[in-house]
Amino acid sequence: MFLASDNTGPVHPNIMQGLAEANDGFAMGYGADAIMDTVRAQVREVFEAPEAAVYLVATGTAANALALATLCAPWQTIFCTPVAHIHEDECNAPEFYTGGAKLTLVPGGDKMTPDALRRSISGEETRGVHGPQRGAVSITQVTERGGVHSLDELRGLTAVAEEFGLPVHLDGARFANALVALDCSPAEMTWKLGVDAVSFGGTKNGCMGVEAVVFFDPAKAWEFELRRKRGAHLFSKHRYLSAQMVAYLADGLWLETARQANASCARLAEGLKARGCNFLHPVEANMIFAAFPRRIHQKLHAAGAQYYVWDGSLEGDDPDEMLAARLVCDWSITPERIDAFLAHFE
Amino acid sequence: MFLASDNTGPVHPNIMQGLAEANDGFAMGYGADAIMDTVRAQVREVFEAPEAAVYLVATGTAANALALATLCAPWQTIFCTPVAHIHEDECNAPEFYTGGAKLTLVPGGDKMTPDALRRSISGEETRGVHGPQRGAVSITQVTERGGVHSLDELRGLTAVAEEFGLPVHLDGARFANALVALDCSPAEMTWKLGVDAVSFGGTKNGCMGVEAVVFFDPAKAWEFELRRKRGAHLFSKHRYLSAQMVAYLADGLWLETARQANASCARLAEGLKARGCNFLHPVEANMIFAAFPRRIHQKLHAAGAQYYVWDGSLEGDDPDEMLAARLVCDWSITPERIDAFLAHFE
Amino acid sequence: MFLASDNTGPVHPNIMQGLAEANDGFAMGYGADAIMDTVRAQVREVFEAPEAAVYLVATGTAANALALATLCAPWQTIFCTPVAHIHEDECNAPEFYTGGAKLTLVPGGDKMTPDALRRSISGEETRGVHGPQRGAVSITQVTERGGVHSLDELRGLTAVAEEFGLPVHLDGARFANALVALDCSPAEMTWKLGVDAVSFGGTKNGCMGVEAVVFFDPAKAWEFELRRKRGAHLFSKHRYLSAQMVAYLADGLWLETARQANASCARLAEGLKARGCNFLHPVEANMIFAAFPRRIHQKLHAAGAQYYVWDGSLEGDDPDEMLAARLVCDWSITPERIDAFLAHFE
Amino acid sequence: MFLASDNTGPVHPNIMQGLAEANDGFAMGYGADAIMDTVRAQVREVFEAPEAAVYLVATGTAANALALATLCAPWQTIFCTPVAHIHEDECNAPEFYTGGAKLTLVPGGDKMTPDALRRSISGEETRGVHGPQRGAVSITQVTERGGVHSLDELRGLTAVAEEFGLPVHLDGARFANALVALDCSPAEMTWKLGVDAVSFGGTKNGCMGVEAVVFFDPAKAWEFELRRKRGAHLFSKHRYLSAQMVAYLADGLWLETARQANASCARLAEGLKARGCNFLHPVEANMIFAAFPRRIHQKLHAAGAQYYVWDGSLEGDDPDEMLAARLVCDWSITPERIDAFLAHFE
Repeated sequence: MFLASDNTGPVHPNIMQGLAEANDGFAMGYGADAIMDTVRAQVREVFEAPEAAVYLVATGTAANALALATLCAPWQTIFCTPVAHIHEDECNAPEFYTGGAKLTLVPGGDKMTPDALRRSISGEETRGVHGPQRGAVSITQVTERGGVHSLDELRGLTAVAEEFGLPVHLDGARFANALVALDCSPAEMTWKLGVDAVSFGGTKNGCMGVEAVVFFDPAKAWEFELRRKRGAHLFSKHRYLSAQMVAYLADGLWLETARQANASCARLAEGLKARGCNFLHPVEANMIFAAFPRRIHQKLHAAGAQYYVWDGSLEGDDPDEMLAARLVCDWSITPERIDAFLAHFE
Repeated sequence: MFLASDNTGPVHPNIMQGLAEANDGFAMGYGADAIMDTVRAQVREVFEAPEAAVYLVATGTAANALALATLCAPWQTIFCTPVAHIHEDECNAPEFYTGGAKLTLVPGGDKMTPDALRRSISGEETRGVHGPQRGAVSITQVTERGGVHSLDELRGLTAVAEEFGLPVHLDGARFANALVALDCSPAEMTWKLGVDAVSFGGTKNGCMGVEAVVFFDPAKAWEFELRRKRGAHLFSKHRYLSAQMVAYLADGLWLETARQANASCARLAEGLKARGCNFLHPVEANMIFAAFPRRIHQKLHAAGAQYYVWDGSLEGDDPDEMLAARLVCDWSITPERIDAFLAHFE
Repeated sequence: MFLASDNTGPVHPNIMQGLAEANDGFAMGYGADAIMDTVRAQVREVFEAPEAAVYLVATGTAANALALATLCAPWQTIFCTPVAHIHEDECNAPEFYTGGAKLTLVPGGDKMTPDALRRSISGEETRGVHGPQRGAVSITQVTERGGVHSLDELRGLTAVAEEFGLPVHLDGARFANALVALDCSPAEMTWKLGVDAVSFGGTKNGCMGVEAVVFFDPAKAWEFELRRKRGAHLFSKHRYLSAQMVAYLADGLWLETARQANASCARLAEGLKARGCNFLHPVEANMIFAAFPRRIHQKLHAAGAQYYVWDGSLEGDDPDEMLAARLVCDWSITPERIDAFLAHFE
Repeated sequence: MFLASDNTGPVHPNIMQGLAEANDGFAMGYGADAIMDTVRAQVREVFEAPEAAVYLVATGTAANALALATLCAPWQTIFCTPVAHIHEDECNAPEFYTGGAKLTLVPGGDKMTPDALRRSISGEETRGVHGPQRGAVSITQVTERGGVHSLDELRGLTAVAEEFGLPVHLDGARFANALVALDCSPAEMTWKLGVDAVSFGGTKNGCMGVEAVVFFDPAKAWEFELRRKRGAHLFSKHRYLSAQMVAYLADGLWLETARQANASCARLAEGLKARGCNFLHPVEANMIFAAFPRRIHQKLHAAGAQYYVWDGSLEGDDPDEMLAARLVCDWSITPERIDAFLAHFE
């Protein structure tokens, strides 16, 4: 009954198999392995972007921080939501990698609105050299609250960025979960809308630890390579990153695992709804924020369930007080486990 | 016949087995996995250092740069050799992670002498606030040229650091290869001599990608954790780093693989010696720098051998010109391969 | 009729005289001048802080950024208002000098409330190593909107910082203007309330370009000196910074110039009030934010007045539309100029 | 008898006069003062460079570090001599401002030779992404040991930089002293040879604290402005930097003060030669490194002379031991003082 995060589950057997197959004989290090050639071709095909620059790193924070540093100067500011992972959960990694750029929090929730974004951008660069300069716009898809921007919503945001000539970064730690929710193509969700760089997540969706960074314009490819090395994120035994990504993309595994996760989440959401839970955010991918009484939280925890109580505390006098849970489904969670979780609501 | 580096070989089956075993069910992320508890205990036992702070990262550059940044302020300078990995092969990662500290290259070869180190340290801080301040001393064991400092040599260097009150970092990317060459204990090679922090390598010695950073004084543990996260080097699915390290240390695997690598290297060195090669550096661990005629280099490369021609170029008119090769043996290279390599010298 | 800023006016004759007197013969550079000894003694006496560490720099941004970098680690966040100079007007200098710390904008206006500050601080460090850690609290006195925190208001804020064990920085670019408004002692406005470091401004109050940074606890003095040098803010001909500060503090000149500026501002505020202007913020020191019709703005600009139209644009169809002006009085503005300014309202 | 440095002397009366004249009424801040327009025109005329971007800062370290950061990426290395000011005397400011670039010390003395420079540059970028990348070449004119590169020597170095496509920075803290020694034009000593950016010193040659940074290609002008502001080096009361530079350049004052300094130095050198001193370096501008017996050092110091004993210590048993002195003449030193200094040799 682990619903704490989509990084607590195991690695998909196909990925493990890929690693085992890669573990044969010698291979050149540092990204010069032959498997990486396949990865590059696969990613370009998946994105219908034959010129794209494609790199692998092992953590989502590395993907985000390196991509943003490549798009954004130290005297600029990055536009994101107040709940963005790059703001709340990366211990100032974007500030570190950019050399001290700022993050401007666009007022609102886990999705920016074009108007709010335009107001935030307009509010910067009104003071000449004194204030931070306008830098990249970073959009999270799936959002940190489980929402999925529609293509229209994304286009609304990238259009504003375009208006001001700003580059767009997509934090796609849960890229696949969003893609299958929207049932569109990777190209439609990215460069066709004006996205410049994507953090294309693998780790949360069945891999061991691999994320691709994709730049649709390869002009900054070499700079990125140097930034990756300088950041200590270039793997010597790089083939084991490549092997994960190859297996992840082969035969649509990445879409299959994402569909499983989203389906499990939908099953859980239905069950919670049937049991009268309130939802703090619409359930659109593989993450739920739902409120239910303390006594049920306590029962669940006593039974070994693992998830974050999002606000409030498990301890407390009032057994009927409503507390919110964050429940995240990964590819591996079974219907049985979900039903077992729900059984505690009786 | 891959002798390019000890990171071109495969992962040891025990490590692969460890990963497979770890891949069961759910586990808390970000270092809170139960396997990490075992790792911590193992490392402390191996080092006879029950208080040591122990962390895992995936690359040697991350281990070095994060350790040095924790030991050294931005206005200080790190003392190392002109051929140190931190100087030549990390694309300014130490400068990046320290926030702009300098590296002072102690004149000499791949081993510092205590006198040269003392002179270099004495040469700094003679200008008050104007010059860089004295920072950490970083020693590489095995050196970049395949040398192993004796315990006396190490003590000579740490004594100088102690004289000036400077912390000592040991870049142990090939820690195990040195240890088995010296036939001493980890404690004898580190904290008993005054080493403060060790980059304890696994990747070059049979792992997939894992290095431990060990601080014998845990006072800076929390700072290190924040630096690791900020550097994007904290793995979400951390158990797969832990699992590698557990398997690496179990039943002395790490010593066994190191012994194999060193033994292969000795076999290769003997063969080269018998064939009249000159050695640029004493062969003390798993790395050889040997000179032989261009025509043999060409024969070897034509036969698919992979290694770096260290100086000079494979192309060239004079078939008898002597060119140096860097030949690195990893744990997996077989006697047959070595003999096949040597056969091309006939 | 210059009311654009308190840095557009001339240097007070006493300061010029001080510079001329200092310009005699030779003096050791880099802060080793004899005048600096006097400055140190003066500042310590003014602040009743015999142990304080005292340094001079030439710009307010340098004072703020260096002080904050000394108080705050790169993985922390600084608490300030959304309109703080360090956030809006220093082009990411605090982020640069701290090595990538974040600024958390405490919701509200130009004064933080203790409750809002407590909520902001409480909101950080709820995610372990993932989020930024709690760093310094930075308070601006006089605020960017011309407000002066009462001693009680300051104490309310420093008490919250104390509660969480956080250091407090006071951005006192207009320290003297606040002090004479409150009619208290420097000690009462700073260390007696728990302030740890002060940017003690001279430039906006009659100097040419000098700010003192004062640390009440000298423990970080040497670190500050290294940071100042590394930031290229240590003057070689330092005596010309010292000479300004000596003259500024001599015979209470600094209080006199501040009183003049505040009195001019009061005169202007009264005149504006009598002419029916609305004030956006209470007028408490030497800065006014007042709204009046576009046609008067146009008349004033045509007559050569210089100040910022704070919102809206001078151009526009409606002559009666109300636009806000920011009007700043420095020590040198005369009653005649103020009356001339007001005359355009007829 | 102050010969410690050319920053220990007073400000030239013309500069003081310029400051006094500038101190009239109101002026826009932050470089928007009218005097800066004059400075820009003057510098462009002096350098015969009508397109040049011209900025003022207050310290030589700021000029150097900001110029280099504008020319050089964080993953690159700057080529300079082992005794360069940027390496020895700026407490890692270039590393700080570049975001962690390295300094490669070209073997040799206070002048690089083209061959040594070529070898150093060739030695970098031999390891792909692993090593630092080739960055700017920084040349010091006058050198730190008082030498002046001939135009041919400079051309030898800039030609090597050009060969590798690297930008060239000239640290001209003593630009004027070199210029009058060579009796050439500023253009001949800079852009006509391929210099891209100059730190054009004023402070050591009669100013209070002002250096111009000149970029002959204005493409990076805006980046420089942002870097200057972010570094806290943009003066609010900027007119007082402008006023110094205007007076410095007016009527050739800068050349006159440099000639005086060089002439004083020549007089002193002759006197020392006549008294049998050995010179460690050729005397070509306003700096002398000369050796004479300890007893004379002691006599001089007892009489109040101020200068650095360059090697060895004033205390010591042997009165006849030869110790080197660094003696720097500024514009203000009089023949009488020099003769008084020399009198102690009798």
